Amino acid sequence: MQYSQLSTRICVPYAVSLQPKTTWNSPKFNNEKSVGHCTRVPRNVNMEKLQSGYLFPEICMREFEHSQKYPQAGLIRLGVGDTTEPIPDIITSAMAEHAHALSTVQGYRGYGAEQGNMALRKAIAETFYRDVGVKADEVFVSDGAQCDISRLQMLMGPNVSVAVQDPSFPGYIDSSVIVGQSGMFQDENGKYENIVYMKCGRENNFFPDLSNTSRTDIIFFCSPNNPTGYAASRQQLKQLVEFAKANGSIIVYDSAYATYISDESPRSIFEIPGAKEVAIEVSSFSKFAGFTGVRLGWTVVPEELLYLNGFPVIKDYNRIVCTCFNGASSVVQAGGLACLSKDGYRALIAVVDYYMGNAGIIADAFTSLGRKVYGGKNAPYLWVHFPGMSSWDIFSEILEKTHIVTVPGRGFGPGGEEYIRVSAFGQRERILEASRRLKNLYK
Amino acid sequence: MQYSQLSTRICVPYAVSLQPKTTWNSPKFNNEKSVGHCTRVPRNVNMEKLQSGYLFPEICMREFEHSQKYPQAGLIRLGVGDTTEPIPDIITSAMAEHAHALSTVQGYRGYGAEQGNMALRKAIAETFYRDVGVKADEVFVSDGAQCDISRLQMLMGPNVSVAVQDPSFPGYIDSSVIVGQSGMFQDENGKYENIVYMKCGRENNFFPDLSNTSRTDIIFFCSPNNPTGYAASRQQLKQLVEFAKANGSIIVYDSAYATYISDESPRSIFEIPGAKEVAIEVSSFSKFAGFTGVRLGWTVVPEELLYLNGFPVIKDYNRIVCTCFNGASSVVQAGGLACLSKDGYRALIAVVDYYMGNAGIIADAFTSLGRKVYGGKNAPYLWVHFPGMSSWDIFSEILEKTHIVTVPGRGFGPGGEEYIRVSAFGQRERILEASRRLKNLYK
Repeated sequence: MQYSQLSTRICVPYAVSLQPKTTWNSPKFNNEKSVGHCTRVPRNVNMEKLQSGYLFPEICMREFEHSQKYPQAGLIRLGVGDTTEPIPDIITSAMAEHAHALSTVQGYRGYGAEQGNMALRKAIAETFYRDVGVKADEVFVSDGAQCDISRLQMLMGPNVSVAVQDPSFPGYIDSSVIVGQSGMFQDENGKYENIVYMKCGRENNFFPDLSNTSRTDIIFFCSPNNPTGYAASRQQLKQLVEFAKANGSIIVYDSAYATYISDESPRSIFEIPGAKEVAIEVSSFSKFAGFTGVRLGWTVVPEELLYLNGFPVIKDYNRIVCTCFNGASSVVQAGGLACLSKDGYRALIAVVDYYMGNAGIIADAFTSLGRKVYGGKNAPYLWVHFPGMSSWDIFSEILEKTHIVTVPGRGFGPGGEEYIRVSAFGQRERILEASRRLKNLYK
Repeated sequence: MQYSQLSTRICVPYAVSLQPKTTWNSPKFNNEKSVGHCTRVPRNVNMEKLQSGYLFPEICMREFEHSQKYPQAGLIRLGVGDTTEPIPDIITSAMAEHAHALSTVQGYRGYGAEQGNMALRKAIAETFYRDVGVKADEVFVSDGAQCDISRLQMLMGPNVSVAVQDPSFPGYIDSSVIVGQSGMFQDENGKYENIVYMKCGRENNFFPDLSNTSRTDIIFFCSPNNPTGYAASRQQLKQLVEFAKANGSIIVYDSAYATYISDESPRSIFEIPGAKEVAIEVSSFSKFAGFTGVRLGWTVVPEELLYLNGFPVIKDYNRIVCTCFNGASSVVQAGGLACLSKDGYRALIAVVDYYMGNAGIIADAFTSLGRKVYGGKNAPYLWVHFPGMSSWDIFSEILEKTHIVTVPGRGFGPGGEEYIRVSAFGQRERILEASRRLKNLYK
């Protein structure tokens, strides 16, 4: 079958597939004259500021090398947070039906609206924002949250100041570096000079100390947080919105894991009164619907959100979407609409519950080792503390002894040191096997 | 059926759907204090430099208004170059099969490689670049050429100088403005101060006079050109490559219409010896496979292409793809693979031939009016000359008298004045009707 010809990310890490690596790592690179024709185009100074490899390809590479070394070890991947369970049939059938229709005169459609099909924009508004007054026109459908974050960075441009949670998903900082907001990387503290790192550790219950946080134009805030798994409470988000309002900041709120929230924590920043004047929300079908490879997300830009000069942010964002993007795949959007049907949504919540069952099993395993485990209650990630240890060392030890891939906390910022992130995405049988191996880690 | 719930671009132009427009056009906007809370975030100065609306949404808006005014007129859309013919079943079946497989334990796949599935990258390399030595590792699969152009702009950053064909697809200039390369717009000549406009008119056979063209870091070059429909000859492209090499420039070559070439013109810049040291090629399944709404494209970045300091461009582009993008939809990539199968490709070429049949019919109609028609031989666009007339006036006259939507040449740059672009995408019956109406234009 054709899908079997499609390689997945874990099988062909780019750095491995792109041979010969020596093209740019060889001595030739140190001697410009010997590399043949060079253009006179300067390398983008912002690209030069990026540190080492992007985290997940790096993990992918180490995973690949490990599996080459131990081909029979039965590697268990709890690293990159990649969904593993089949997508409910009601959803894939909608995609298949849409695809087949494209072969008919009646069903063929070309370009869709750049902002997404109105039926899907309405369904997103009604499903996720019914009680908070987000309109369909404020919802921009996309090919995923990571892509939207970069589009938002293009929107904001190089001359804004930025704050991020520390630790947080590396895409915020890396895209910030690429558009030129970050300043230089400082080896002494592992931070970019112009980025404000809001420490979110066990000391402050994984919520930043806003009274000691400098004002920035943009505040990236992810809740439930990737990697800590911590969902901010209503009271905390009220503080955040007040802080943004007092400072005239814009919050870019990433709610990609909101459907995993099991307690009363808000699932959207727009549950907080006044948030529409200070926040953009980015979200995704990836983890909620198993769409990591299918690609679908959305961004809400409220009409009330205004720049300093009173100009509506939504108008510029619309321009970005029309110029730099051209709409999510129509086939995929048909699947997204099915996700939000009554039966589709119910089926997906069952999958979410399944992953959260996994989270409990893994949490128990680490707890049995005497480790303090955070997260795993409102998010499919566990954030496990190894006091005094380097996170890459923890990563390597666990990989070597148990053949389980995790993510070193350091990959999410300096505040991630001493931690690893463990993903709860996995088939139950593999999760149980991981649990058995982990329990024997120190035996 | 679900697909029928999906609105198409032509039905819901954004500027219409986003009510109330007065949010930003009202007097309120001129009086900052009355619009409620303004953040203290400055609007991106580059966004401020963008002129009026993006062309295609603007056309879409006028089309919408016209159809409101004449609901019974039987509007014929030869404006936005949107495919109209059903996608061959072999291709949509591959997408449907992939979608269904995602509901099975064996067939489920999460994240794919950010650069695209290797099977598809190989198929692209073999189908389009077999004789010119492009490797699969140099092919980056994407969600479309327009998106790739913006990613390339992020890659290059604000400090490069840029040349474009005049006229050309507006996405090059608009994305250039957004990342900060353009300087200010100059009302007196309709150009951005820092962009080099390479005039491509009938005077120079639609190929720029390179002996009078200033050196820039980047040269956007589209062949077959959108909108003129002109495909550069081998000799001309040799000149272009030599020009780039002598100047140390990088050509961003857009070959989105290459499958429409019917003569000996090169279908890829890489057919020209030495091009791998000076060019990137962007291409697309949109017009070739009817994937305008399905979304799939690719970009080739040769390993030989180096910045001034000898650093390989491919390495930075890979970083952009990993950080700012996350791979094209797996479902869509399965369709792309089927497009490049022997039967899929043959079926698609039949559709291309059908559209080119349309082009001949429309060309005859304009010729019968005494108009000189360019293009339409190697591209699905006709470029029709109306000496001494404003292109928006031609657009409006044709729309008003024949209810046919075209695109005013001015939308593609100052060099497009006196022309309209007419798309050959359409069902034959509608094209024949358009031909009848056009022949009566002056009666």
